[in-house]
Amino acid sequence: MQKSKMFFEDFEVGLVIKTESKKITKKEIISFAKNYDPQDFHIDENKAKKGPFGTLVSSGFMTLGISFTQFFETGVVKETSMGAWGIDELRWTYPVYPDDKLKSEVKVIEKKLSSKKPNKGTVRTLNTVTNQDDKVVMTWIANFLIKTKS
Amino acid sequence: MQKSKMFFEDFEVGLVIKTESKKITKKEIISFAKNYDPQDFHIDENKAKKGPFGTLVSSGFMTLGISFTQFFETGVVKETSMGAWGIDELRWTYPVYPDDKLKSEVKVIEKKLSSKKPNKGTVRTLNTVTNQDDKVVMTWIANFLIKTKS
Repeated sequence: MQKSKMFFEDFEVGLVIKTESKKITKKEIISFAKNYDPQDFHIDENKAKKGPFGTLVSSGFMTLGISFTQFFETGVVKETSMGAWGIDELRWTYPVYPDDKLKSEVKVIEKKLSSKKPNKGTVRTLNTVTNQDDKVVMTWIANFLIKTKS
Repeated sequence: MQKSKMFFEDFEVGLVIKTESKKITKKEIISFAKNYDPQDFHIDENKAKKGPFGTLVSSGFMTLGISFTQFFETGVVKETSMGAWGIDELRWTYPVYPDDKLKSEVKVIEKKLSSKKPNKGTVRTLNTVTNQDDKVVMTWIANFLIKTKS
């Protein structure tokens, strides 16, 4: 469901934005990890069986990119995002397995107008990614830069 | 240069591991971002010209994956990594442009044996990614889980 465009002023602390869910495939896990996280438990199904997870799991970096993309695809910052300056307290709390269905929830926890450039401000959000069993697999705090209306 | 395998015990606070450098291409920037960060300034060269960076830039999530992979490819944790539980204080400090050459430096800042599972411990590192002009483009703290010898 495409949501309306939001400027910095439209984000209120406490606001929660929920995303659609996405199915993670074994093919995507391996394909991503070959370039960005080539550990055996992300790229080799046989070796993964003897690894720390006992099976193939998603790279946490991929879960991060998917989580952001889920938020972006809601449409709220498609025209107002000016990037981001950082991430805080990212935690991988549970493995992401092939065929998991992930969804994200983005909660505004703080906002601050830029003191140098008043055409933008930081919107700080706590992002929670859950699987099909509502188990939390990842949380992270994003510091997004969002355009102001003026 | 392939370095020797390191267990938890081998990581000492203050140790610095330097990686090879890698050239970032426009093709890779666009290809990554289409799936994991589909903002105009990462996927559309023309729209990017009117965007906040005035040109196409790498997704910060891609820079992160590349930075980890550069560390992993040194070989030190290829057989001893048991994953990671989180990231702290990730900062994107300067844009990554097409044709930039990135390298990473990984400094051990803390280590702690797992109280529950003595077969592993957390190695906390400060990772600094620089471009061909030695400009810092990203810093991040990783919390890696590394096997013990026993």
